[in-house]
Parts: sequence; structure tokens; C-alpha cells
Amino acid sequence: MSARAVVLLSGGLDSATAVAIARAEGHEAYAMSFRYGQRHEIELEAAGAVARHQQVAEHRIVDIDLSAFGGSALTDPGIDVPEAPGEGVPVTYVPARNTILLAYALAWAEVLEADAIFIGVNAVDYSGYPDCRPEFIRAFETMANLATRRAIEGHGISIRTPLIDWPKSDIIRRGVALGVDYGLTLSCYQPDAEGRACGACDSCRFRAQGFAEAGIVDPTRYQLARRGQD
Amino acid sequence: MSARAVVLLSGGLDSATAVAIARAEGHEAYAMSFRYGQRHEIELEAAGAVARHQQVAEHRIVDIDLSAFGGSALTDPGIDVPEAPGEGVPVTYVPARNTILLAYALAWAEVLEADAIFIGVNAVDYSGYPDCRPEFIRAFETMANLATRRAIEGHGISIRTPLIDWPKSDIIRRGVALGVDYGLTLSCYQPDAEGRACGACDSCRFRAQGFAEAGIVDPTRYQLARRGQD
Repeated sequence: MSARAVVLLSGGLDSATAVAIARAEGHEAYAMSFRYGQRHEIELEAAGAVARHQQVAEHRIVDIDLSAFGGSALTDPGIDVPEAPGEGVPVTYVPARNTILLAYALAWAEVLEADAIFIGVNAVDYSGYPDCRPEFIRAFETMANLATRRAIEGHGISIRTPLIDWPKSDIIRRGVALGVDYGLTLSCYQPDAEGRACGACDSCRFRAQGFAEAGIVDPTRYQLARRGQD
Repeated sequence: MSARAVVLLSGGLDSATAVAIARAEGHEAYAMSFRYGQRHEIELEAAGAVARHQQVAEHRIVDIDLSAFGGSALTDPGIDVPEAPGEGVPVTYVPARNTILLAYALAWAEVLEADAIFIGVNAVDYSGYPDCRPEFIRAFETMANLATRRAIEGHGISIRTPLIDWPKSDIIRRGVALGVDYGLTLSCYQPDAEGRACGACDSCRFRAQGFAEAGIVDPTRYQLARRGQD
């Protein structure tokens, strides 16, 4: 049996690349996605399409209720998604999100006897998020290696962040080389009901810039009305 | 405004005492309980009764689906609850449970601007659980102080475990002094539908021994049929 790894899969560009890297390293990939009060569930459909295309061993969707906590433009309908970069931590930050997602991944990893968890965080283009920083990831890994029965029994767990210091263009080049179909992925914070991107939010702009810098044709489907206003 | 604290409240003896200690230290207590595929939801009723009796500022119950992960006698109907101590980590261990519960508490603490999370773990009577050990708690606290926007903005969070090295009898004496009504609490791993304890599982035995050693009358309601077999 090849080594198992849990891979957090949002359906976006980074996590789709993380799945491909985990598989290229010889891991049997178990993809985990979350339904956490996102404004648009269409990103879970993207996650499913990516999981099928990359032939993961299993794709599990876990229901969690972060919207009850509010406090983020991504989960609270009362806060607008910004279309220009601000200062400090973005309003799209969700309280303790990566801590919660990694905690669920740790539970599944223990049951699967997996020795790694892959998360496609990136500290270059999204440096505003506290829980995308290398020091957070290292601290989570230290904690995880004290948290479980499997750890006590001598089996370590690695939290792998292969993309953490790559520019978006490098992520895209690597993914294309590994056969990732970025046409299946969705990065936009406010897609329409058909999964077309707004082209205006932070996430859309970093993505478009990445394809441009990589010299690779951008397969993203954009909302025509929005693009017409540009 | 007094300082806020999130207190994890299972409805058991230890967490009820943790609520009382948080309040005695001057915190405004926000109690958080979880519906996570427990065999008996009656423990959530106990948590509600404790929260009302101790007049917490708010009691929130979060739905999480740990049963999907299996692997524990507390969440998997296929595994029996043992009635004699075993070796190593007990089968009542739930994979990564305290990591997940503390992650939710961290999210709520950030929204509330709370500066502490209380958890009634105890490393004396339950030393078999990896995620009740002081080294796990310290590692979680280190991680938590890197995980949130509030941490980046200079507000620290403490993970408080006031009971961690107290014998059960000391926990009971302290709680009685603070006005805890242990008749409202439920410790048993396999209570009946009316919330009466089995008297035979690990948790029941530690609890009964604690009241005996403290010299305090045990208000626990036991299942008569089970007790009749003793």
C-alpha cells in the first residue's frame, strides 16, 4: 500500500495543485472539502470535479457551521467582498478557519493511518491571512504530533505546504506539468450560479496575473456582464 | 465589561466545575457544547441545565459530525464501552476530538474578543488520552496565538486547564464550594434515556470514587437494574 495523505481541497487553483503534488510524490490522496456556509456551493462542485479528474482514493465533504460565528465577508451576507486590496488582514479572513479545517483533516488522517496532510496555503500572494503563515503551520504540526493516539504510538504526521512560498505563476506551471485541468477549478470569492468568476475580487486578480506571468492561457470562465463593465 | 472566556461544557462533572472556576475568576462565561454523534444526547440536556444554573452569558451548541470518522467506542455503535480499565489509550478516545473542540472554541473566542478558553481536562484520572496532556494543551496554545487576526493584532489567548492535575476529589470539593450542583451533571459513557448512570464504566467509577474520597454525598442517579446486579 502506498502512503496515504489527506489533502484539503477547496476547488480552487492552489488546492487542486496540492492534490497533484501529493499524488506525484507517491501518496494515495484522500481529498477533504467543507461545506461551511460559503456564499456559493458551486465551489464544492468544482472540488468534486477536480477530485474525479485526479482520481483521488476518496473525496469526503464535511458539514461545518462557521456562518454561526460570522465576522467574515465570505460567510456573513452583511459584509461586502472588497474589490480593491486593503491593509492588514483581509475582511475575507474567516476566524480560525485553517485551524478547524486542519483539525478535521487530523482526525481523518488518524483513522486512515495517513502520515501527511497537504494544504495549499500560500504566503506570497495572500500574506494577510494569519493562518497561511509558515510559523502557524509549524505550530499546528507540533501540536498535531502530541494530539493523537497514533502520535503516542510513534507515528508522526507532517503538515505539508508545497506551495507556501511559490508565486502564483510557478504554482500554475507546476500544476500544468502534472496534468491539472485548471478549467475545473474556481478561485473567485463571488462566482455566479454557473461558476463563472467575477474577475474583480482579490482572488480573481491574483489568479489572472498568475496565468499572465506563467505565459499560459487562462481557462477561467468569466461573468460576461462584469467583464463588459471593465 | 468583564473579560470574556469561552468554556467547553460537556455536561460532565469536570466541565461544570470549569465553568464555576472561570466565573469565580471574574470572567463572563460563554459555554460551548457539541453534538458530535454521541450515543446519548442526554448529555447535552445536562450541559444546558448546568449552563442555566450557573447563569452563563450564552450557551451555544455546535453540530459536528465526528461519527463519520468512527474509531471510538463513544461514536461508533460497533465498539462496546469497556467496563474494566485497559492498557494504553482507551477505546473511548475519539480521534483528534479535543483539537477539533478547541479549534471551534478559538473561532468563537475571536468573534467574542475573549482572552481565554477553559477546558476541564484532567491528566490524573484520564492519563490515557493524548489530548488531555499538559504538553498537548501548551502546543495548542502556542498554535492558537499564531492562528488568528486577533493574535496578529496583539491580543493573546490563554488555554486554561485549572483541573488538569487535581484528583477528582479536589475537583468536587472546589466545585461544591463554588455552588456547582453536581446533581445536574452527567459523567457516564452509557446513560439510560433518563440520564441515569450505569455505575460500571471508567467514568462512573472515577466519579463515584471522587465523591467517596471527598466525603461528599454522591448525587448521581444510577440505573436501578444495573445497580441491582452488583
